[in-house]
Formats: sequence, C-alpha cells, structure tokens
Amino acid sequence: MIDYIGVSDMLRLVSRVGTGAFIERLANEIAHDYRRWSDFEKSARHASHSAVGVIELMPTSDGRLYSFKYVNGHPKNTAAGLLTVTAFGVLADVETGYPLLLSELTVTTALRTAAMSALAARHLARADSRVMALIGNGAQSEFQAVGFYRMLGIRELRLFDTDPKATAKLEHNLRAMPELSELRIVRASSSADACKGADIVTTATADKRNAVILTPPMIAPGMHLNAVGGDCPGKTELHPDVLRMPNVSVFVEYEAQSRIEGEIQQMNPEYPVTEFADLVRGAAPGRSYPEQVTLFDSVGFALEDYSALRFLHCLLKEERGGARQIDLVPELDNPKDLYGGTVGKAVRSPVRKTA
Amino acid sequence: MIDYIGVSDMLRLVSRVGTGAFIERLANEIAHDYRRWSDFEKSARHASHSAVGVIELMPTSDGRLYSFKYVNGHPKNTAAGLLTVTAFGVLADVETGYPLLLSELTVTTALRTAAMSALAARHLARADSRVMALIGNGAQSEFQAVGFYRMLGIRELRLFDTDPKATAKLEHNLRAMPELSELRIVRASSSADACKGADIVTTATADKRNAVILTPPMIAPGMHLNAVGGDCPGKTELHPDVLRMPNVSVFVEYEAQSRIEGEIQQMNPEYPVTEFADLVRGAAPGRSYPEQVTLFDSVGFALEDYSALRFLHCLLKEERGGARQIDLVPELDNPKDLYGGTVGKAVRSPVRKTA
Repeated sequence: MIDYIGVSDMLRLVSRVGTGAFIERLANEIAHDYRRWSDFEKSARHASHSAVGVIELMPTSDGRLYSFKYVNGHPKNTAAGLLTVTAFGVLADVETGYPLLLSELTVTTALRTAAMSALAARHLARADSRVMALIGNGAQSEFQAVGFYRMLGIRELRLFDTDPKATAKLEHNLRAMPELSELRIVRASSSADACKGADIVTTATADKRNAVILTPPMIAPGMHLNAVGGDCPGKTELHPDVLRMPNVSVFVEYEAQSRIEGEIQQMNPEYPVTEFADLVRGAAPGRSYPEQVTLFDSVGFALEDYSALRFLHCLLKEERGGARQIDLVPELDNPKDLYGGTVGKAVRSPVRKTA
Repeated sequence: MIDYIGVSDMLRLVSRVGTGAFIERLANEIAHDYRRWSDFEKSARHASHSAVGVIELMPTSDGRLYSFKYVNGHPKNTAAGLLTVTAFGVLADVETGYPLLLSELTVTTALRTAAMSALAARHLARADSRVMALIGNGAQSEFQAVGFYRMLGIRELRLFDTDPKATAKLEHNLRAMPELSELRIVRASSSADACKGADIVTTATADKRNAVILTPPMIAPGMHLNAVGGDCPGKTELHPDVLRMPNVSVFVEYEAQSRIEGEIQQMNPEYPVTEFADLVRGAAPGRSYPEQVTLFDSVGFALEDYSALRFLHCLLKEERGGARQIDLVPELDNPKDLYGGTVGKAVRSPVRKTA
C-alpha cells in the first residue's frame, strides 16, 4: 500500500495550514532543496507535444528520494469545461525503488509556482516593494496574489486580463480572503496601465504562442519582473527587446531547461543568465543596485515538485490517523514468488469485485 | 475522477480471463500496435541509476492516447522481503491531456513481457518447437512458461536456476496450473544441460551485471533464443561470442534503446539487427532457414506498456458496474476558477478527513 493524496486530501491539508502559510512553508522547503542543488539529478522535462497541447514528465532525484510529475498544458480545454493544466506526481524511495506517495499536483502546482515566484522575488525585488501588477488573471493569479501579499508585503495589486470576466473572478476571490485584509485592488485598463507605479510585475498568461505582454516602455527602473506564463517552446510573454534592455538581469531555475522553454528561448545561447541555486547559495549576486530591473524567467523545475511532494508527505504524516492508501504495488509473503503470490493465488480463489 | 486498477482489480481481471488467454489476447494487442509502429512517438526510457538499482520512466504516444510506465529494478530488494521490480502506469487522452486510467503494472509487466516474448517467438522460432529451456526461475519464469505453452505449443520445459529453491518454486507453481496439463517438467543440472535438446532457450535472470548464462557450445542450429533478463546498461546474459556466431540473427524492439540496454550493448553500433516492427509488418524476414539461430534481444519497450494499459482499460469497461475511481484531478464547475473551485471553497468550509 502506498500513501495517497487525492484532491479532497490536498484541500484538507491546505485549509488546515492556511493558503498563505502553506505557500510560505513550501517556499522554505524549496529554498532548502535549491541550497543543495548539486545533490540533484537534473534534466529538462520530457515533453510530448500535440497540435492542441503538451504532456510532460518531470523527474528528479537527490539520491535518497526520487520524484516525478506528470503535467499537461492544453489552453483550449477551458472551452470544453476542463482545466488547462492538470498534474499529479509520485515520491519514491531510491534505496528500494518503491513508490511512497501518489499525490494530486494540480492544486499543488499552483501553490508551488506561487511559492517559487515569491521566493525568487524575495531575493530579487526591492525590499520596499508594495505594489504589484498582476497581468493574466487565470488559474495561477490568486496563488500569486496570496504568495506576494504574505512573503513580499505587497499591499496593492493592479489587475489586468484581456478577459474582463477573469479579472472579475480574481477580484471576487481576493475580496473573499480574510488573510488579505490590507490589500488594495485596482483594475487596470491595459497591461501598460497595470504596470504604472508597480514595483513588481507578474505575468501569468496562458496562450500557447509567442505573445507580447510586456514591452520596454512599460518597464520602469528598479522593477522586478516575475514572468510565469512563458514556459514552453513557442510560448513567451515578453518582447525580446525587454531582454535586451541594458539594465535587465535574468534569473532562471535550471539553465538547460530555460533555454528551451523560458523567455530566453528568444535570445542566443550565450545570453547571460544566473541560476537561482547560485543566488540562494550566495554564489552569485541578486539585485546589485536600486535601478536594476530583475527578471525571474520562471518555467517550473522538477526540484520544486520534489520539494512539494516531500512537504506534502510530511504534512500527511503530521495528521493523526492513517492517510488514505492505495494498492498500487503487490505485497507478497515471498518476494521471489511473484506468480504464486498474485496471479496463482487469484486463479485458485478468484478475486471478487470490490467497487 | 479517473479509473483505477489496483493489484486486487488486476488479479480479478486476470482470473476472469485466464492467465494463458490473457497473455495471448495481450500479445494480439501488442502485435496490433507494432503494426502501426510509425504512429508512435519513440524514445529510449529515462533512467535514474543509483548504486543499488534503477528507476525508469517509459513514455510513448500515438497521437490519440499517451502512456507512461514507472518501473524500478532493484535486485537486492528480495533480501529485504521486497520485489525486485515494481511498476505502475497511466493512460491519458492526448486531446485534453487528462489522465484516464492509473493502473498497477507490476503483475501486468510480467504478463506483457511474456506476451512479447511469445509473440516474437511465433515469428522467429521453428514451427515445430516443443521443448524450451527456461534458465532463471524467478519472478518472470511462470509467465514465460504459460505464454510459450499456450502460444507456441511448448510441451517440455527444462528448468535451471543457480538457486534450487527458485526452481522448486517454479515447478510447484507450474504443477498447480490446470491449463498446463500436458506439460512435461525436467529439472536440469546446469544451463548447458537445460539447453540440451531445446528448440527455444529463454533466459530470465536478474543480476545487475554482465553475466554469462549462454556460451556458443550451448547453442544448437535452429534454436530460438529469448533473452529476457539483460535489459540495462551493464546487465547482459549472453557471452558476446554468441552474438558473433555466423548463423545468429538478432531481433530487437526499438534499436535506439536496445543499443543501450540489450545484449547488443556488447557489440559495436554497426552490428546488424532487425526491429520487430519490420518483422510484424512483413518488411523484413524472420527465420530464413531451419538451421538459423534467431535471438530476440528483449528489453521491454514503452509501446508494450501502452498496449497493456489500453487492453486493461478495455477489460475494465467490459465489466458490469463501475470501475474503482480516484480523485486525482479536480472537477470544477468553472475551469477558469481553479482557486475558487478548490482552495477557496475548502478554506470557506474546511474539508473533513475521510480516511
């Protein structure tokens, strides 16, 4: 039997901890794991592209635990009443190869993406940042809002989406959260309007194409840009001229993957970037001067899902009573007798249906 | 909710269909899929090696369905009362990226490996084959025995394992199977003794090293060799001189993967091999003359797990009543409101523990 966290279990864990606290604790776990960057086996994710979307596997291991995430991205799904992104993942024991935990990761991915964004911004944004533009008011937007409110002290959000219904949904959800009591919410009329006066600009749009959400005139000195939506070959959010601005410094999760999937896919392979692991370990500087524009070119790396699965498993173990479990792996009296302990036994005394 | 096949469900399905019939029907599904080889996205598996074993992900897709298998190989596990190999997998819809089925694949992998072996042997072994040596009497051996009895008409098995207890276990299990009523079982004193008079030689040993189970003097003209155990870099079963014998022809599943993992890892990259897909589509000859020695250098390819998951899903749908389902993916009234439909709802009215 292996531990199982379904959607209902995940929601129970988040409501027990609280959304903001969950994001912050998860960010701490992610930081902990990035600090031991060299322990991890790293590879770009393994993507299977089709005309309408992508299905990806994201494995990693630190030699003690192994994890992978399955995640899809299908922008047209919402038209059919389905989610654009769904995900699940497994944590396994490297010593035995046995899976330990199967978990939903759709909700978790939204939380961990916000955790990673806020964590990077803590190292890169100006300490006095209080105003954030939030462009793209879809599935990821509430999580970003909670993460930056809690971890960065953001107190004004300037919202924009090409779909006004998305913005209305976001505003409705934000106003219903007691933990955001000091938040001022402003609806902007355009991306440029949203950026006016912002200390941080978060883009979390979802089109599977090269979009132009941000252009150089929108970027003020000292801004931190948190580019979340561009995370696939051919899917970007920034005009390449933003990357060419002389005061812009770019930070990525895992360079080899970001060259393929990030905003920097638009630049040549020598375009300079700094890996977040170097930042968190103090091996590279973050923000060097107040007017510097810092860009976190987020795509999502397997290590963050590893951290999330490890964190979820800890939360589950903290609860009184047993977790839900599923019979994904056989348990045999004699492991050298796979047939006799499974099929042989079943054929002798047929297994009844247990619906 | 997605369909779920746990170990207990899998055993119910096999006991309903019958072990031999299950292997044969699965072999037909595998043949069906190999015939449309060019439809599939193919890659060598993604392996994470440690000192004690390996964890692998094996994805593939035909543009309509996507599948992956998680599988480990840890030879020392049995000493701790655990299985050497465990596996599970997922079938997903390419159009939406949503998972459709999560299934145990430990038992299934044993069945599909036997199905693939017997399928290859149908194309390669002499039609009058009746005697098979079965060297390596571990987890895979019963499944090979049933598959070759049913699909090839094997009526004498010559068993050998360095561990006499493994052979005793295999013989005990085989004698308890009513469907093998005409089978003669012979215990051999060595690998060489097992090969005497055999039409087919199956090797299914599990050491994670370059072993020498078969050498040229054991190989008689006209034999078919079914080399199942060598399936990892550094893990082989045949002396390289067997591959250098002038009358030996080698058949593989997917050349790019077999060059890394199969017996042919011992040869140079130009060593000639034929892919099974060419055989099953009639694009390449199988056995050309009675004295030819044919070798199926089996490592297990993702397409076979795709076929198995597709077959299992069909079997599940055939049953009256609903399959077991798990809440691995959220279901939302409004797919554009991930937060409001999950965390937001849970925080407003906390989810109780449902153990």
